[in-house]
Order: sequence, then C-alpha cells, then structure tokens
Amino acid sequence: MTLWDEIQSQPSILSGYIDEHWGDAKETASWISGLDFSHVVMAARGSSDNAARYAQYLWGAHNALNVALAAPSLYTLYASPPDLSGSLVIGISQSGESPDLLAVMESARNQARPTLAITNNPGSPMAGLADRHLDIAAGPEMAVAATKSYTNQLLAVAALSAALDGGDDLHDMLRAVPDTVAGTLDRNDRIAEAARALRDETRCVAIGRGYNHSTAFEWALKIAELSYMVAQPFSAADFRHGPLALVEPGLAVLAVATDGPLFEDVADLIEVVRAGGARVTAISDREDCPADDLVLLPSQLPEWLTPIPVTVAAQVFTYHLTVARGHDPDDPRAIHKVTKTV
Amino acid sequence: MTLWDEIQSQPSILSGYIDEHWGDAKETASWISGLDFSHVVMAARGSSDNAARYAQYLWGAHNALNVALAAPSLYTLYASPPDLSGSLVIGISQSGESPDLLAVMESARNQARPTLAITNNPGSPMAGLADRHLDIAAGPEMAVAATKSYTNQLLAVAALSAALDGGDDLHDMLRAVPDTVAGTLDRNDRIAEAARALRDETRCVAIGRGYNHSTAFEWALKIAELSYMVAQPFSAADFRHGPLALVEPGLAVLAVATDGPLFEDVADLIEVVRAGGARVTAISDREDCPADDLVLLPSQLPEWLTPIPVTVAAQVFTYHLTVARGHDPDDPRAIHKVTKTV
Repeated sequence: MTLWDEIQSQPSILSGYIDEHWGDAKETASWISGLDFSHVVMAARGSSDNAARYAQYLWGAHNALNVALAAPSLYTLYASPPDLSGSLVIGISQSGESPDLLAVMESARNQARPTLAITNNPGSPMAGLADRHLDIAAGPEMAVAATKSYTNQLLAVAALSAALDGGDDLHDMLRAVPDTVAGTLDRNDRIAEAARALRDETRCVAIGRGYNHSTAFEWALKIAELSYMVAQPFSAADFRHGPLALVEPGLAVLAVATDGPLFEDVADLIEVVRAGGARVTAISDREDCPADDLVLLPSQLPEWLTPIPVTVAAQVFTYHLTVARGHDPDDPRAIHKVTKTV
Repeated sequence: MTLWDEIQSQPSILSGYIDEHWGDAKETASWISGLDFSHVVMAARGSSDNAARYAQYLWGAHNALNVALAAPSLYTLYASPPDLSGSLVIGISQSGESPDLLAVMESARNQARPTLAITNNPGSPMAGLADRHLDIAAGPEMAVAATKSYTNQLLAVAALSAALDGGDDLHDMLRAVPDTVAGTLDRNDRIAEAARALRDETRCVAIGRGYNHSTAFEWALKIAELSYMVAQPFSAADFRHGPLALVEPGLAVLAVATDGPLFEDVADLIEVVRAGGARVTAISDREDCPADDLVLLPSQLPEWLTPIPVTVAAQVFTYHLTVARGHDPDDPRAIHKVTKTV
C-alpha cells in the first residue's frame, strides 16, 4: 500500500474500529476506572507524541484527568528515574518497539504502577510489558509516514474518553467520524490547490490550540518529514509570547481554526498575522474563518472529534505539497518506519 | 538598560542570587519537603516554559520528582479543569501576570492543592495567589527579550534542586556558575563570528537533549523573536523520529552538545546530519565535538549546570545574528514585554 492508499483507506479503517473495538475501549475504560491513581503519564515519540497531546487535552477537558507527557530520556540516560507514585502510565506507539518508551513502561512496572499500552501490534514488546493493551487495529502500515495509525490512535483516545464518560450517545458521535473523513477526502481538489500554492516556500509555521494543538503539531511533522520544509508548530497562545515577531510579508502560516471556544482566539491571531503581511492557509469547519486561503471541511462533528478529519485534510495537503515539490511521499529520505531511540 | 547590557550583567546578577537567596531556596525546599504530594505540575509560557522544561529534567534526574508541564488552555477555555489531586502546582513567570497561568494557580487553590510561584516580582498577582513565592531576584528587566530573568529562573530551579538534596557541596557547585558565565562572555568574538555565518539563512533547526533540551528550545525562541528566522527546536531523540528528513545540503543546524551521558548521542546525530550535507554550529564544552563550527565554552561545570552558560552563549549568538541581519535587538517587532494570554 502506498501512502496515498493508506490515506484513502481511513474512512473504512476508522469505521472498522468503531464497529469492532468499542467493546475493547469500554472494557479498558472499566479497567482504568477500577485503578487507584491520581494522574496519567504518557510516553510517546513522533506522531504518537501528538496523539498523547490530544489525550492531554481531551481527557483533561472531558474526563478531568490530569495528563502529563513523559521525558523518556529521564528513564534511559540519567541514573535514576522519577518517582511515579500516583500515576497510571500509558505508552502510545505504532510499533510498540522504541527502547526509550519501553524503559518508561519498565520503570512503571518496577514501581508497581499500572500500565496501559496503546499500539498497532498486540505482539509488540510494549504490549507484552503492559498490564493491559489497547489495540488501535489500523492494520499493517506500510508507508514510512504515519497516517491511518495516527488517526486510529486519535480515535482510540476519543473512544476511551467516551467510554470513561459512560455514554453510548458519545459512541453515536464517534459513528459520525468516518463519514466526515470521507467528506474531507472529497475535498481533494481544493486541498491540492491550497497545498500547491506553498510549493516554493522554505519554511512555515503551523498554529492550533486546544484539541487541535495536536493537529498543528502533526501537520508540521508531516510537512517536515515528507516535504522537507522547516515547519514549526505553535499553540496560538505560545505564538503570541515571542514568535509573533517572525511574521513578515510572505511568511506562510498554516492554521487550524475549528468551531468551539478557541475559534475567536485563533481567528483573532489569524487577523493579527495577516495584518503583518503573512499569508494564512487555514483548515476550518467555519465559513467565516478569516484566512487568505480556506480549506473548508464538513461541519458534522463536535470540536473534540475534529482533530481526526482535520488531520486527514493535513495529510492530503502534505501529500500534494510533497509531490508539487518534486519529492516521493513513499520514500522520504533518511528515515525508516520503526525508529528506535534510547 | 539595553538587551546587551542585560546580557553582560548576568555574572553579577547570578552571583547576587547565590549570595543572597540561597537561604530562601533552602527554606522553600524545606517547605516543599513538608508537603503531601506525589508529582509536580508546572504552568508557564514562552521562555519561562523552557525553564519549566529544565525543571522537568533536573528535578526528575536529581530529586526523583515527576514533573509535568500543564496545558493552561484547559483551565481557561474549556468547561472544567483537570483534577489536580496529588499535585504540587508551580507557576513560573517573569512578570507573574498572564491570566492563563493565574487560572491554573487559582484552580489549584480551589482544589486545595499547594502552590508555589517563581517570579521576578514579589508584588505580582501570581506571587499573591500562591501559598509561597520564590523570588528569582533578577532585578527589573527592560529589554523585551528575556535574558537575565531566564538564567536566574534556571539558577533558582537549580538552587531548589540542590537544597532539596540537602547538600551544601551542591551550593558550592552553584558558586562556579557566575565565573563560567563570565568566561562565556569573554568568548564574544568567537560567538559573533559563528553567528554572522548564519546571516543569510531563512530557517534553521536547534537540537539538544536532557538538561539542555530546554536550552535548544530557548535558543530557537530567542532567534525567532529577535532575528526573525524560523528556528525549530527538537530533542535529539524526536529529531530522529521523522524530522531528520529535513536534512539537506546547506541546512543550518544548531546543536548543544555538552559533556555527560548524552554527549555520544548528540555527537552521533551531528555526524549523521553532516553526512546529509547540513552545516552544524555547536555550543559545547568538549573540544572533540564534531561540529563544522564549534563555540567552545569553559568546562568548569557539571552537566546539570551547563544550561546557564550555554544559554548565555546562545543569547550572545542571537544578539550578533540579529544585528548582522539588520534588525534592532531592543525593538523586536510586534511583541511586548508582558504578554497576557487567556
């Protein structure tokens, strides 16, 4: 399967997860509810780290869970790891193989803390190490750049949130995701046009906030690894604390501006950035998003589920940008499918 | 005072902190030791967020504290904040004024959790809100870009770590910091030469790991806000998980490669990046650091204290880069000294 095929397969892969793995998510949520812990520590790298960011916001806002992202180096390169008292430790990894993430999980086990692995491989070392495994069930991913495994990680995180809340009505909301993703893929021509406009840039910044803070980070990562353009992601709030000085005529700014309590803040920042002469390309589900170039998505989802279709739009965007820049999306230079860091 | 003056004042400001505020750090450490908590949640934005990153690594490795960086948006823009059970909540802010950080501290108070504010203003709202205030005592900072307030934040974090460890020998180690910073400032000509070589770049990446993960982030932030160059920071481990594909002939890569358990990993990454044709400028205290352009610092400090002199070198670097690019380091466009985000 090529990257393009894997991007296109997402409606059916997401649909399969909702139909066949809701029970697993409910059982995992029930297991979590029975644990004695006060906060969550997540261990992840690369795209999976962006899924962990999504979990930090979603579980924080919907489930009142205090979620932290671990610094895996503390568990591998310095003498003694942090005291994990009170924590539930969750590893997220497509392959379930990176040694530094396994070191975090091992440290949690040694400290008698509960552990959950969220991977795409029930036979992986991380799945074997953890007390419990949640399978994202995205099927084998052949392309180097993560696409369907990332969106199924987001869906698994969202399903856990819904299951922790106990609501089958939330499960119904999840059911609207695959259709919205299919509707997003239907906008291919519009997305391609917006992407090709950035063909000659050497650098850009990506802005998002709240649930889509993670999406800005994932969009930027995909652009860096496939299009070879330095793409720096920021929370809209952090951007105002200094990096706003980067804005100058011609600077390419990518923004995620979905409907919800953050829309006004992000829309205001888009206007500030445009007043400084930058050119803003936005993905939004609101027609009134004040971008120079607007990729308008179907508005069928509550804000907390929008990172899934917005990410798919960002994947399609990056695919066309990469091809327009003369690179091969299926053969990114210098990187491999499974990266093992210590 | 200009930015240049504030950069040059750091040996005496750091020295003043060590001489006059060690007692405050010891009392604060004693107060922390008496609290009932299992983990630390830190709230910060901008440069202060990089000081929080340093705390995550240093307190994690030296004091076994599990430190998390908060997502302040969760406390302002979504309906309900996370459950902070078991946490000690620490705000770090030069001004102590940003509303989103105050919201995190207020939520902690409402949940009856202990709070510590680390600011440069004992009369600030954050200092007033917190159970206890630790003054970084950097004196009024006039330049928009944080320099002496950042290095004194790092020193306060290091002093707390040393005091929590209980060792007056560690206090003696802190005493070596101002001299090393003075020795760093003496290398002005060498740093200026390395900076001017990057005058015509439009983008770069900055790499660090461990204690100096934070330094790579602070270096990149200074370059963005003063030199207007997109400067993307990465942990050396995260860089291998995808962004390594960015490497191409001519790409400017900045690296922090200090002596310690991370040196081999960062040095290996420098060689990988150079093999791909990128040009590496490194700040290091090791002569054998394999960079194209090496800024060699005095090697008088243990690794955990190197972020202070390395940051000073990065400030001097950014000052000269900014001037060489024709910009005014004392009047960065579009940003202000105190940024209030919600």
